Amino acid sequence: MNVLILGMDGYIGWGLSLHLAAKGITVSGIDNFSRRRHVEEVGSWSAIPILSMSDRLSVADRLYPGKVSFIEGDILDFDFLTGVLKRNRPDTIVHLGEMPSAPYSMIDATHAFYTQQNNVLGTLNLLFAMRDYSPEAHLVKLGTMGEYGTPNLDIPEGFFDIEYRGKKANLMFPRQPGSFYHASKVHDTHNIMLTCKIWGLRATDIMQGVLFGTRTHEINASKNPETATRFDFDEVFGTVINRYCAQAVIGYPLSIYGKGGQTRGFLSLIDSLQCLAIACENPPEKGEYRVFNQLENVYDVTTLARAVQRAAGRMGISVTLDHTVNPRKEAEEHYYKVDAHRLPKLGFRPTRTLEQELDIMLEDLIGFTDRIRQKQSVIAPRTTWDGKGPAMPVSQQNSFSEKPST
Amino acid sequence: MNVLILGMDGYIGWGLSLHLAAKGITVSGIDNFSRRRHVEEVGSWSAIPILSMSDRLSVADRLYPGKVSFIEGDILDFDFLTGVLKRNRPDTIVHLGEMPSAPYSMIDATHAFYTQQNNVLGTLNLLFAMRDYSPEAHLVKLGTMGEYGTPNLDIPEGFFDIEYRGKKANLMFPRQPGSFYHASKVHDTHNIMLTCKIWGLRATDIMQGVLFGTRTHEINASKNPETATRFDFDEVFGTVINRYCAQAVIGYPLSIYGKGGQTRGFLSLIDSLQCLAIACENPPEKGEYRVFNQLENVYDVTTLARAVQRAAGRMGISVTLDHTVNPRKEAEEHYYKVDAHRLPKLGFRPTRTLEQELDIMLEDLIGFTDRIRQKQSVIAPRTTWDGKGPAMPVSQQNSFSEKPST
Repeated sequence: MNVLILGMDGYIGWGLSLHLAAKGITVSGIDNFSRRRHVEEVGSWSAIPILSMSDRLSVADRLYPGKVSFIEGDILDFDFLTGVLKRNRPDTIVHLGEMPSAPYSMIDATHAFYTQQNNVLGTLNLLFAMRDYSPEAHLVKLGTMGEYGTPNLDIPEGFFDIEYRGKKANLMFPRQPGSFYHASKVHDTHNIMLTCKIWGLRATDIMQGVLFGTRTHEINASKNPETATRFDFDEVFGTVINRYCAQAVIGYPLSIYGKGGQTRGFLSLIDSLQCLAIACENPPEKGEYRVFNQLENVYDVTTLARAVQRAAGRMGISVTLDHTVNPRKEAEEHYYKVDAHRLPKLGFRPTRTLEQELDIMLEDLIGFTDRIRQKQSVIAPRTTWDGKGPAMPVSQQNSFSEKPST
Repeated sequence: MNVLILGMDGYIGWGLSLHLAAKGITVSGIDNFSRRRHVEEVGSWSAIPILSMSDRLSVADRLYPGKVSFIEGDILDFDFLTGVLKRNRPDTIVHLGEMPSAPYSMIDATHAFYTQQNNVLGTLNLLFAMRDYSPEAHLVKLGTMGEYGTPNLDIPEGFFDIEYRGKKANLMFPRQPGSFYHASKVHDTHNIMLTCKIWGLRATDIMQGVLFGTRTHEINASKNPETATRFDFDEVFGTVINRYCAQAVIGYPLSIYGKGGQTRGFLSLIDSLQCLAIACENPPEKGEYRVFNQLENVYDVTTLARAVQRAAGRMGISVTLDHTVNPRKEAEEHYYKVDAHRLPKLGFRPTRTLEQELDIMLEDLIGFTDRIRQKQSVIAPRTTWDGKGPAMPVSQQNSFSEKPST
């Protein structure tokens, strides 16, 4: 297998590169390093220090000789992208080259524009490049469970059988994105589905749950710091469990947005890599557009905060839970039930329990409390969905333990 | 009412400007003149000559003094767009400022990129500009019936009540766009729906059928040539009935794509203006995202070709029907049934029968046979959905009367 990874320098991208290389797979990658710039733009950094790409490549080459290569470039540059496909002729393309943050897309018009431009038009470029230079390749595209929103129905894997006025059809399950970022992934979904139909491309569109975690089979920041992948904890790029863990190690209250009944699918980084490898190893038929719901478990964000609180307790750290004004516009209590059968059928088995994973994360993060403390002002939510500027800092809001006032 | 029209220079835009001005409504408009450039790019021109915008404005000012104003600019230019909203403070914004051709979006990667950039990001700019400078204004957005594709189900007006695994919900009817142009409109739909939800904007998203026609209450190219709106007949920008009529007046076989069972909703230009005015006069509530299916009748493209053939016969012109290879990837025989109740409930009544409209069109076009003949090579389909270049010219394909070979 010859895999091309778009977004090799990212949280998942670097982890996947090492994971596939460790399996003996030849991996080439591209990245425009936008994630490093964006995190800097919002005033933060990775809690766990990461190497430059050139140093990463040296490490990869030492660990997996000749398996990992890289070239810097932007998917919005069509000539660059076609050049990569022409030269590499990958049989699998894993597209992680999108701007992955909902809050970043909601900052203002410029950031919303950038998000949809980069994600939707970048993917459109990729689809045309594939049509012309890698029409047989398998596109593994990272979407998000957030494409579905929170309908008051079970969420199937992409499509559902329905009967309407006496006629039956199998149709795409309606999407209800809750931010311009989520919408960009919905737009991709429609574009990719179209090209499978009209050009016979083959694609796995992955509706992934919210990720968390620091360690993979190949990455252990505590033992081998040079393998580390990034770990963001700011309000813009930090996912909820990662933010809680960063808050926990500095003894900062865990920020629960609003009522805290928001329920989502979650998945550890190590298992995201397991799933992506399974997707790569099991390509769909030519012309097939296939959706995987990629998650381990469904939790609400208060349950998760309590789990992190207990994990911190096991390390002797006492933290409180803090309910902040929700910067997002979203249902805070709702029905949520998701089908996720396809990956388990192909062999996916969760690696660890949530508790085990949290213990590992706190162990990996505890050495970087200084780095988190230096940037602790970027953890509290400032980017609001109504565009009316920063939410109040946590210190000025009702702060309490375990009992929401909203 | 103070209406801002994005895309004032277009086929609908110019017609709507005069129609609203005639009702005594103050109309301001913007346009970047892209349609004129694109039609030139594909080697064609409007069959009916149209004035420059500055001459159009003089005519409008003579007919409806002080009612119509215009400023040149591009919706991708956020500062320009916010400037227009700041100055004009429209209470209604009719967004016709999108690239409206499916074939144009399928020419190549550059044109697909352009289409989604202009349409999706232009509309995104508009939504942010409205949030900040006209949050109470009513957005009347031109979508397309093509957003729905051809599901094997009745097509409701935007949303439908469904029951799935014992739970009920009212959800967006799934969209199945058949080109990058149609997809761009689906992307808009998701973005607009999101902003109604999170910012409380109010919008009417119009799923419009395929237009045809030359004449409106205010426009009569035969009597007052200076009022004319454009009339495209090339394979890229000409809609199917308009193309047939142009072919008829030069005695050219009417080109039916493939089997000819493709069935769509259709609407005359004069009634599109009637519907758009009704939408403007009946704004939704704040925060409401409302969908209108805007069409008069449903026809298959062979039935329409026969109707044009008969209308030509009434003028003494004998034309044959020609089945060409279908340049598109689409179902050529399928179920099609559409709800269109909301506009009739608000008072919409079709103005003329198809036959009456066709007679008028041929009467208006007959004076421009020379202009159509000069560009007749651009009528036959060249832009193919598979990107494999021009379809064979009609003259080299099986050509016959009334009996498809495919």
